[in-house]
Amino acid sequence: MLEDKIKKLIGKAIEGMNNAYAPRSNFPVGAAVLTSKGNMYQGCNIESVISGLGTCAERSAIDHAVAHGEYNFEAIAIVTKAKTPVKPCGACLQYISEFSQVAQKDVEIIMATSNGKYKKSRINKMLPGMFGPRDAKLDLRKYQK
Amino acid sequence: MLEDKIKKLIGKAIEGMNNAYAPRSNFPVGAAVLTSKGNMYQGCNIESVISGLGTCAERSAIDHAVAHGEYNFEAIAIVTKAKTPVKPCGACLQYISEFSQVAQKDVEIIMATSNGKYKKSRINKMLPGMFGPRDAKLDLRKYQK
Amino acid sequence: MLEDKIKKLIGKAIEGMNNAYAPRSNFPVGAAVLTSKGNMYQGCNIESVISGLGTCAERSAIDHAVAHGEYNFEAIAIVTKAKTPVKPCGACLQYISEFSQVAQKDVEIIMATSNGKYKKSRINKMLPGMFGPRDAKLDLRKYQK
Amino acid sequence: MLEDKIKKLIGKAIEGMNNAYAPRSNFPVGAAVLTSKGNMYQGCNIESVISGLGTCAERSAIDHAVAHGEYNFEAIAIVTKAKTPVKPCGACLQYISEFSQVAQKDVEIIMATSNGKYKKSRINKMLPGMFGPRDAKLDLRKYQK
Repeated sequence: MLEDKIKKLIGKAIEGMNNAYAPRSNFPVGAAVLTSKGNMYQGCNIESVISGLGTCAERSAIDHAVAHGEYNFEAIAIVTKAKTPVKPCGACLQYISEFSQVAQKDVEIIMATSNGKYKKSRINKMLPGMFGPRDAKLDLRKYQK
Repeated sequence: MLEDKIKKLIGKAIEGMNNAYAPRSNFPVGAAVLTSKGNMYQGCNIESVISGLGTCAERSAIDHAVAHGEYNFEAIAIVTKAKTPVKPCGACLQYISEFSQVAQKDVEIIMATSNGKYKKSRINKMLPGMFGPRDAKLDLRKYQK
Repeated sequence: MLEDKIKKLIGKAIEGMNNAYAPRSNFPVGAAVLTSKGNMYQGCNIESVISGLGTCAERSAIDHAVAHGEYNFEAIAIVTKAKTPVKPCGACLQYISEFSQVAQKDVEIIMATSNGKYKKSRINKMLPGMFGPRDAKLDLRKYQK
Repeated sequence: MLEDKIKKLIGKAIEGMNNAYAPRSNFPVGAAVLTSKGNMYQGCNIESVISGLGTCAERSAIDHAVAHGEYNFEAIAIVTKAKTPVKPCGACLQYISEFSQVAQKDVEIIMATSNGKYKKSRINKMLPGMFGPRDAKLDLRKYQK
């Protein structure tokens, strides 16, 4: 991915971060996906007082794209206010991995700080060989257009 | 809420339903929230192959609004292809209830079929007395603007 | 349910509460289910640093019973250190409701304080008409023995 | 870990698998943890009709141990009826990783088939560098005894 597009995607993730609902942890996280159609959708963490409810920024960004009918992702950026880039949690890596099976694409993962430093990786490197919708033999054709 | 606005909110929920990612159940669900600023955000169910991941339409619609910096909800509409209106699940009622504590507003719940029949209720009637962010003494001021 | 049995079930829930893993909220919650075979299984809240992971006490108690091959519940007790009894969250009510469809039994819900005060209700009163495995037409026969 | 102990832990995971509540997928999964005190606790998948509720076998086994006041794990075994060993999902790897921070121990992961073939790995190899309770600066002392 071109430097310019990466910067734009990180900017979209920062937009998400600024909207985070994190009254429990006070640790806002933002994310943004780039779809195969070239659109960007932001997300943020949304915390519940209940263990097991609430959404991470990465899953929120993916859900945002899905709500617009987009299921195929090129890249996802994650941003926090920590000094060094933070990795997506295991649950989010699982989620990204499942959608990488929909698009049959090795999604790029961009981990950024809010002042623009970043690291890059790929879902198949960060969480290889995960069980997903193809392994469960689900019919994914209508989500691949 | 006026009939006209209800119809529009149900229409937005149907837009969400049409984008559902439901390869496991093949049971698409849509939802849409109306915010205190008068905006509408759609959501849909997004299924994972993993028990405990995946998102319901109602939570997806709320997360969609939060990603745009809106935390105060007047109403939420839910729609499926079933013949009679379906209630939000308990997890979604909990989620709606928590945000009703943010806005201190008794959120209206509109349960609709895809051909426009609907029932109305309120979160405080459907799930009264839930534990939420106020009970946990979380500081909600910046989410109340 | 007899007073004596209720007291015993609350005692089991307190045993669960004392084992809670709650480093985030420092608010331990305990629960215990009574099965149709007469056994009691305790549970507690287990918190994750990730929004959307972690388990409530009620679901943990049910999962504990399921791990022993028991799916049919007479009652569930919930206990916290709060001064007045706390209700199960909406997600847990949904979970209890689904298992009430397995057993076709209106599960009794006992909400207790750690010094033994309690209130009683029923799942069909607290969360009536929920979508569950019967509505999804799942085959539940092997879980009904 | 000695071959003999591994076999015993897989046996306990199979006991969990046989109790799985999986009416949606009909794909039972079992797991078992070995604690630092030498005890074994089984778990299984428990499916909900709701996206985002339900528990995986690995988290269920950990929760089972926690409900007994044990937070320090040496190893976890996972078993399914698939022909080749299946990896824990990303959400479960996250959960195991968080408890590996409690015990400060690189938990062994044993992936087995129901006829006893298995592969071994470690949490820090399968999901390195995850955000956990230590990164969130939570006080874990009472869970380390």
